[in-house]
Amino acid sequence: MAIVREILALRRLDPQGLPLQEQLYARVRRAVVDGRLSPGQRLPSSRALASQLGVARGTVDAAYARLAGEGYVLARGPAGTVVSPNLRTDIQSPRPKPAVGRTCAKAAPATQPRPFQLGLPALDMFPRGLWARLTARGARGLAGGSLAYPEPTGFYRLRTALAAYLAVSRGVVCEPGQVIITAGFQSAISLVANTLLQPRDKVWFEEPGYFLARDALQMASAQLVPIPVDDEGMRIDVAEAYAPDARLAVVTPSHQSPLGVALSLPRRQALLAWANAVDAWVVEDDYDSEFHYVGRKLPALKSLDAADRVIYAGSFSKTLFPSLRLGYMVVPAALVGRLADAANTAYHGTQILGQVVAAEFMSEGHFARHLKRMRALYAARRGAFARALVAELGEEVELSLQAGGMSLLLRFRDPVADVDLVRRALRHGLAPTALSDQYIGNVRESGLLLGFTNIPETEAARYAADLRRALEYPNRGD
Amino acid sequence: MAIVREILALRRLDPQGLPLQEQLYARVRRAVVDGRLSPGQRLPSSRALASQLGVARGTVDAAYARLAGEGYVLARGPAGTVVSPNLRTDIQSPRPKPAVGRTCAKAAPATQPRPFQLGLPALDMFPRGLWARLTARGARGLAGGSLAYPEPTGFYRLRTALAAYLAVSRGVVCEPGQVIITAGFQSAISLVANTLLQPRDKVWFEEPGYFLARDALQMASAQLVPIPVDDEGMRIDVAEAYAPDARLAVVTPSHQSPLGVALSLPRRQALLAWANAVDAWVVEDDYDSEFHYVGRKLPALKSLDAADRVIYAGSFSKTLFPSLRLGYMVVPAALVGRLADAANTAYHGTQILGQVVAAEFMSEGHFARHLKRMRALYAARRGAFARALVAELGEEVELSLQAGGMSLLLRFRDPVADVDLVRRALRHGLAPTALSDQYIGNVRESGLLLGFTNIPETEAARYAADLRRALEYPNRGD
Repeated sequence: MAIVREILALRRLDPQGLPLQEQLYARVRRAVVDGRLSPGQRLPSSRALASQLGVARGTVDAAYARLAGEGYVLARGPAGTVVSPNLRTDIQSPRPKPAVGRTCAKAAPATQPRPFQLGLPALDMFPRGLWARLTARGARGLAGGSLAYPEPTGFYRLRTALAAYLAVSRGVVCEPGQVIITAGFQSAISLVANTLLQPRDKVWFEEPGYFLARDALQMASAQLVPIPVDDEGMRIDVAEAYAPDARLAVVTPSHQSPLGVALSLPRRQALLAWANAVDAWVVEDDYDSEFHYVGRKLPALKSLDAADRVIYAGSFSKTLFPSLRLGYMVVPAALVGRLADAANTAYHGTQILGQVVAAEFMSEGHFARHLKRMRALYAARRGAFARALVAELGEEVELSLQAGGMSLLLRFRDPVADVDLVRRALRHGLAPTALSDQYIGNVRESGLLLGFTNIPETEAARYAADLRRALEYPNRGD
Repeated sequence: MAIVREILALRRLDPQGLPLQEQLYARVRRAVVDGRLSPGQRLPSSRALASQLGVARGTVDAAYARLAGEGYVLARGPAGTVVSPNLRTDIQSPRPKPAVGRTCAKAAPATQPRPFQLGLPALDMFPRGLWARLTARGARGLAGGSLAYPEPTGFYRLRTALAAYLAVSRGVVCEPGQVIITAGFQSAISLVANTLLQPRDKVWFEEPGYFLARDALQMASAQLVPIPVDDEGMRIDVAEAYAPDARLAVVTPSHQSPLGVALSLPRRQALLAWANAVDAWVVEDDYDSEFHYVGRKLPALKSLDAADRVIYAGSFSKTLFPSLRLGYMVVPAALVGRLADAANTAYHGTQILGQVVAAEFMSEGHFARHLKRMRALYAARRGAFARALVAELGEEVELSLQAGGMSLLLRFRDPVADVDLVRRALRHGLAPTALSDQYIGNVRESGLLLGFTNIPETEAARYAADLRRALEYPNRGD
């Protein structure tokens, strides 16, 4: 306890700075994230810490409450407050002081993703050995100019491989010169927003929508206009009525994020006609279209884009792995120069080795084979997990089983505060996502989004039961 | 020629889009950058291309003139216009159509950086084999959680290694939790600008200064206030008189970019006092302080920063290699939370493998050894090249031999248009940089910045003679 107190009270809070409660919150959060405080470790009582820091007890209580709300700590009533026992403590957060100068034999100790975490491919099934061999070969080939600043628009062979892949797989016909490589989707959307938007420009944004895209657009001072989504995707008619003067629309036409529906063909046409008429741009976030299980999937919106208004954005985070941090855009010919210059200014190029390896992975045919295997694997995992959920929670919930994607959506027959359910689940080491957190406006639906890609078929029943218990729903057998 | 015409006239220019001249410029530039047009290849005459595209001949002339000005093409008078023969055609720009699906045996054909190019470490002397071995080992260790989204603030072991290194080498004492890993300096300055500045906020910026930092700040809608630099660095007194209400100052205190002078101690103190008094922030861009040859170098500005107002920014581009795209910041405790959140929004973390390898390279002691070797190498290359320049151009120029850094500055005794000299040099395959291009305002000094790090001692005389000939200065022996 003495050590914990020392960590938290090492420096006095700054009375001139942010609100004290904010400072204390940040300090504890940082210590947890850094690993200086370990999962399960007890924090000082609010009375003791308040006295040591010379602040009001209410200040500490407020900081602890916020930390508890965000899942960093767990209030155990009379037993005090502890660091959440089930926090992911992965390679970024080794617990005890990491030794400087010590030889780190292996690169990174492996830990598993948290159950139900969204947006992760099946990390257990990635062809690691093959990737490592290609990486070793790529690293040996780095010399001379390939050590210098990378071409801002990306490694040419990767752009060529992507142009070929997107033509076949998504109906997107483009020249390699229109492909711009980015450090993932967040980089792409930030780049587009910073380049094409003026502060306060209006942007059509799906309601509910993808929160990281929302944050990036807001960081660029865009004014998001939430547009409701129904069974056919974004309500283009509503958008045109509310904000015909928007400069940009951001859509997920293949599997709407998070609801999973596809944007219907009439709406695709309406969206493109609007963009063309008012000289606006459309970002197509095609984040997981590779994984589709039922019926035929539609080609990309970009394939219909005769007027060249669509910026198509894809990522290797779902098709390869997220820590590669590689994504790509296909941009209208009229925007190539501006976006290339902006990429140079904002990033000065994207790391070369990952691009080299991804290009080889694609051109040697591994990419197509890997996607085929993952499609079959995800279909099986999705089916098994859906059956297990129905078996555990059938009476209580409505399960949205969309035609594609990497997550399931549970809605509850009775209205529930999904954020409370998420909090309960986090305490049990489970990481579902609250549907209501994906909205901008005040009218929100409640539900739980559950990533299934990392739930092996043989474990589906166990995870479904864990979830039921964490949510404190009765056992159907009871 | 038929093929060239096909490339350039494949699609008609869009009469509704950007100015036609702009469109044609972008099209040729892209074809050159993509490698669809090769160095030395002849372009259609402006008359022929204009008729084929259905535009005025003046439009083609204007586009060609701009391309010539930027070094992409070379006007050979009656012999027509050709793609610049000495363009760097590196791995990003393979010449003839790269075959999709073809096995790419080795990752990347090696080419050399252009002579005198700024800001590159000695690419020929990088310990490639060692780096490749560490990379292979790192790649084999990637599994589970290390394939998922990286911690937004960076790989913890690298942050720890950097905290230890910066304490010893730069006098910067910080917790690993204050170190944020970025995808290079451009990412860092963009992140800081987008997070801390409101549009039109004033920023003190060195005049002359580092143009990529300037561009990134302008992209974030900052209002740059150019502050003159003299022998003691930025004129803090002038800055305080002109723009006391600035929100940020961006400085290169160790070796001012591009002049190479150090910010004096009294000015350092004045800068920090101002920032503390008006609650502004300071970015210390410590881009090449590792290379210092004469006398003792000052510790970092950050080491004096008792009030915690300085964001220290460093990069591995100069100490390792640029295409790694890794940089770092040490940020004030009060900003950790905000900048970490912003990093997550803007990038969603930085690629893990490069971080893992950099961490091992540092913790196994290779980094310190490599820097020591490079310091000695650069001192030798700098001396040899300076002597060769004096031997070739002694009467004509004034050579600024600063105490550190990776470039030399030539000023000419007679006033010259340095941009013309640069254009001449580019035609000879040399890539000096014009000093006058590093200014924001209209009062500009003229000179040539010459990177010396990639000029082997044995080649110094030849390169100096090449430069003299390219600049059309008389041979001193004549």
